Amino acid sequence: RMQNSRSKPCSCPSLKLREVASMYFTMVAAFLVILVVALQGSAPRESHFPYKVPLDPQGLLELSWNVSYPEQAVHFQLLIRELQFGILFGMSDRGEFENADLAVLWSDGHNSYFGDAWSDAKGQLHMDSQQDYQLLGARRAPEGLYLLFRRAFSTCDPKDYLIEDGTVHLIYGILEKPVHSLQAINISALPGGLQRVQLLKPNVSIPELPSDMKTMEIMAPDVIIPSQETTYWCYMAELPAGFPKHHIVMYEPVVTAGNEALVHHMEVFQCAAEFDSFPHYNGPCDSKMKPERLNYCRHVLAAWAMGAQAFYYPEEAGLAFGGPGSSRYLRLEIHYHNPLVFRGRRDSSGIRLYYTATLRPYDAGIMELGLVYTPVMAIPPGEENFILTGYCTDKCTQLALPTAGIRIFASQLHTHLAGRKVVTVLSRDGRERQVVNADGHYSPHFQEIRMLKEVVSVFPGDELITTCTYNTEDRSRATVGGFGILEEMCVNYVHYYPQTQLELCKSAVDPGFLRRYFNLVNRFNDEEICMCPQASVPQQFYSIPWNTFNRDVLKSLYGFAPISVHCNKSSAVRFPGEWEKQPLPSITQRLPEPVPRCPPAPGPQPAAPVPLNLGQLRGH
Amino acid sequence: RMQNSRSKPCSCPSLKLREVASMYFTMVAAFLVILVVALQGSAPRESHFPYKVPLDPQGLLELSWNVSYPEQAVHFQLLIRELQFGILFGMSDRGEFENADLAVLWSDGHNSYFGDAWSDAKGQLHMDSQQDYQLLGARRAPEGLYLLFRRAFSTCDPKDYLIEDGTVHLIYGILEKPVHSLQAINISALPGGLQRVQLLKPNVSIPELPSDMKTMEIMAPDVIIPSQETTYWCYMAELPAGFPKHHIVMYEPVVTAGNEALVHHMEVFQCAAEFDSFPHYNGPCDSKMKPERLNYCRHVLAAWAMGAQAFYYPEEAGLAFGGPGSSRYLRLEIHYHNPLVFRGRRDSSGIRLYYTATLRPYDAGIMELGLVYTPVMAIPPGEENFILTGYCTDKCTQLALPTAGIRIFASQLHTHLAGRKVVTVLSRDGRERQVVNADGHYSPHFQEIRMLKEVVSVFPGDELITTCTYNTEDRSRATVGGFGILEEMCVNYVHYYPQTQLELCKSAVDPGFLRRYFNLVNRFNDEEICMCPQASVPQQFYSIPWNTFNRDVLKSLYGFAPISVHCNKSSAVRFPGEWEKQPLPSITQRLPEPVPRCPPAPGPQPAAPVPLNLGQLRGH
Repeated sequence: RMQNSRSKPCSCPSLKLREVASMYFTMVAAFLVILVVALQGSAPRESHFPYKVPLDPQGLLELSWNVSYPEQAVHFQLLIRELQFGILFGMSDRGEFENADLAVLWSDGHNSYFGDAWSDAKGQLHMDSQQDYQLLGARRAPEGLYLLFRRAFSTCDPKDYLIEDGTVHLIYGILEKPVHSLQAINISALPGGLQRVQLLKPNVSIPELPSDMKTMEIMAPDVIIPSQETTYWCYMAELPAGFPKHHIVMYEPVVTAGNEALVHHMEVFQCAAEFDSFPHYNGPCDSKMKPERLNYCRHVLAAWAMGAQAFYYPEEAGLAFGGPGSSRYLRLEIHYHNPLVFRGRRDSSGIRLYYTATLRPYDAGIMELGLVYTPVMAIPPGEENFILTGYCTDKCTQLALPTAGIRIFASQLHTHLAGRKVVTVLSRDGRERQVVNADGHYSPHFQEIRMLKEVVSVFPGDELITTCTYNTEDRSRATVGGFGILEEMCVNYVHYYPQTQLELCKSAVDPGFLRRYFNLVNRFNDEEICMCPQASVPQQFYSIPWNTFNRDVLKSLYGFAPISVHCNKSSAVRFPGEWEKQPLPSITQRLPEPVPRCPPAPGPQPAAPVPLNLGQLRGH
Repeated sequence: RMQNSRSKPCSCPSLKLREVASMYFTMVAAFLVILVVALQGSAPRESHFPYKVPLDPQGLLELSWNVSYPEQAVHFQLLIRELQFGILFGMSDRGEFENADLAVLWSDGHNSYFGDAWSDAKGQLHMDSQQDYQLLGARRAPEGLYLLFRRAFSTCDPKDYLIEDGTVHLIYGILEKPVHSLQAINISALPGGLQRVQLLKPNVSIPELPSDMKTMEIMAPDVIIPSQETTYWCYMAELPAGFPKHHIVMYEPVVTAGNEALVHHMEVFQCAAEFDSFPHYNGPCDSKMKPERLNYCRHVLAAWAMGAQAFYYPEEAGLAFGGPGSSRYLRLEIHYHNPLVFRGRRDSSGIRLYYTATLRPYDAGIMELGLVYTPVMAIPPGEENFILTGYCTDKCTQLALPTAGIRIFASQLHTHLAGRKVVTVLSRDGRERQVVNADGHYSPHFQEIRMLKEVVSVFPGDELITTCTYNTEDRSRATVGGFGILEEMCVNYVHYYPQTQLELCKSAVDPGFLRRYFNLVNRFNDEEICMCPQASVPQQFYSIPWNTFNRDVLKSLYGFAPISVHCNKSSAVRFPGEWEKQPLPSITQRLPEPVPRCPPAPGPQPAAPVPLNLGQLRGH
């Protein structure tokens, strides 16, 4: 195991404020860092860093990494193109600069140091008493300085971030002046930003690809990226007439060189087969010029987000497209994120589909789990962690799944802006068995299709329970379920095979019981609230005085009332059966909370930054 | 620091099942254990064990102990009068044999061992992978074998019991046969029992006692202990006519020699001053012959329970008795616990009061905190941990306490049979400041007056919040508040000085809001429940169908509804003011959860029992 053994106590300025008086305040200089830390053994074994994201919108900081599951550690390679007096890199719950876990490279103008630090609730930096970012090396190259370091998933240091599956919010800060004391840094005052990634990429082996594989690029043709922070660009593509049924077996992003930091995410949607034709379009998705009919292009064929790699279907399955009953029209949607408002940047990014005419044994399908889009599921305002749960019941899977079951291999979690966590759990005979997908740092701004680490088999009679956690602290009225961006959703799109007729297995509280809740609230509270029966469900929610009792009782209602189950072949057609006033699935045994593994005995070093030699000065 | 350093790996039978075949099954023998464990240093520094309880009703096992707060450890001395093939001693949440943390002394007939073990959910024994009971020595004496061992309060071993303030349930089991494998032992199948003690006695220094101190013994005169498991014995005593006001400055138990294991607890009550005289009585408290008027003797003067020592008042205060306005009549109540149903045992136990005519600066007082005795505070059936909270509000302390405040120095927690935990917290300006008294393993069968480790100062405007946790898993109907043994209470009798007029500072939910709850439950649930307005509160609670919604909403009600505050000079006379529909005190900042301190670096040994030499065999 590689780790730096040089941790002799050093009297570094950051800790002792030594030489503060003799500092060269007027020095305008940058520095090059030359590695002096002896690497144990030779070059890092982890020389390959398959995952890469730019951290900043200019792409001056570029992070590559790999994941070692046997070591339970991530190896980072950070490319710093224009180093000044150092860099802060780290992780925090939701990308905030406060309470963050940070690796810091800093220079006082003479000497440079690397260490593990943390920021407190005010953004103030502190050296960590346990050093868990382990410097593996630094390398000068024409393009900049490469820093190599390692971090265990879990350090058991309460000041450290626990690296888990799902979204990780990376943050960075740039040191533009010499640093004489780490304690003097307040990260909130530095230039910096955040980048969301899935750090713990699954270790899935790449399936063998068919020899007759062809490619098709769905790309925006020479778009001039609008000079505004956020643009959703829409482009309509079309399959050739008479294009027969094929299987998509993989796809990958095609990002125009130089725009890596601007192309935030891309999706290819297939249009509804009901319409014979769709108009061409190439423009912003929110434009008034956009034809109405494009709203019927919502069936996901492919989705990519920054940091993601190519997506491979399992060897036995492919995503069908082409042929009768399948629309020839595709919509490419690109989210350009341009916070520095670059002008005139041209882009032809898109997604390259790899497909085969030699159909694989199974068609892959996509199923929606979670909550129905209805206002009856609502979140009171001012809630820090409000939980809503959607159920795919045993009765529905009993009816709709084949005896041999289905295999879920990927998942895309979805909420609107208040979503903070999403998890789907598989339950069988009332006992939770397996997490299908979980994201404890979910962000609505980072919705990837994620391969699962382990394929999940679901059999008739199983239950799939999807739980979303919302934060409405910044809202003054209730947030109801619905399609609007300020309404909420709780959805897990699971990708599975073999495809079944079941497109949607979701639930919502029984509306009759919700009416009883409104009546109850009306009678219990002294105030006369307009709970006129003709008022809409959102209006009734908006008029509730949100005291603790009304909040608590709403939670109790959602945890008790029977549900209306949507066990549907398509969004409009239910499977035959009684789906109203169904009992809530009961869970008699929960999955145990995962206990983080701590680093093995020869653990992290005590608190002491690692000194680096300052190389030649360079004019800035 | 003393700890046994002999932990060489040994091939002991318990682990390897060695010699199982060659065991002497017919051997009827006991053994003497001779210490072979070398003590580091000389004799234990902790040679004095001020606290003592018998563990079993015959007094064959006697536990003495001391507490070292600097070391955060308890030193135990266990006297085993008739050792057979070993003993199990340990601790568990509520005295159950399952999931217990155990020190085990066992013999296979040849060799003897001491080790740290735990019992699983079925009572099956397992050697602990971390040995935290540290054997300090063993000593043979005419009366039996003394085992000395040490245990840190907190070991950070998840299999170990955390020794906290308040009640600790000690358990023991007797090994009557040779033991060839620890794993073969199921503690639930052994003869054994439980004893409740306060292990962590406060380290309070004994105040100086007045030179003119006199004693008075309130003792049952030659009672023949009834041959039944439980007897509450009542005896009336009388102060001399014209006995002037004195201060009780301490009291101690007087237990008839030989009856140490039978006298469970004793209390001295003073009768109500309203009555000129009380009849004499000496008999069971539940006898039909007991005069009705004795029910007016409820003012606690002194209380003792098994394991407790003498009780000292703080140097500045004494408990007033005698003089005008104070009844001359006292009632002694003794709880005899006689599970082996001994016959004809004579007893003259009681309490010795130490008092002085030289009055101290302050009279001590007793104040009741918690919940009013009313059925409006109820616990649904089948609850594992249901919480009720009683409030002494800022408004009441503002009105009733002197500017200089009062000082609480002792506390007696009280619930009926469903009580499992009790805690009182002091809150000031909405922020929790200090725990007044807490018992996380509270038992209604062990209600001592406990000296506080730290005196708690309470000032006008402070709030005292008392929270009780109940278990009603064995009940099929709701448990309402009240005086009956199957009704519930939540009370903390705090002992304080200087005495004020405030005798009672308690609360209960506003009855109007409870009516709204009954209406709500009635309307929400489909069933028609008899919620006739003329029905009593208990009857309404009994008729509720206890689904999760009705349970949850009751919790929400108690957490939301305004309260009726009893801020009383005596049980009937309120301080002037508006006490109905008072807002619930709001807490903006909670006390942090205590983080257990783990043993320092040179910690416990790895799993290996300590071998002891088997001495001479002895016929049994």
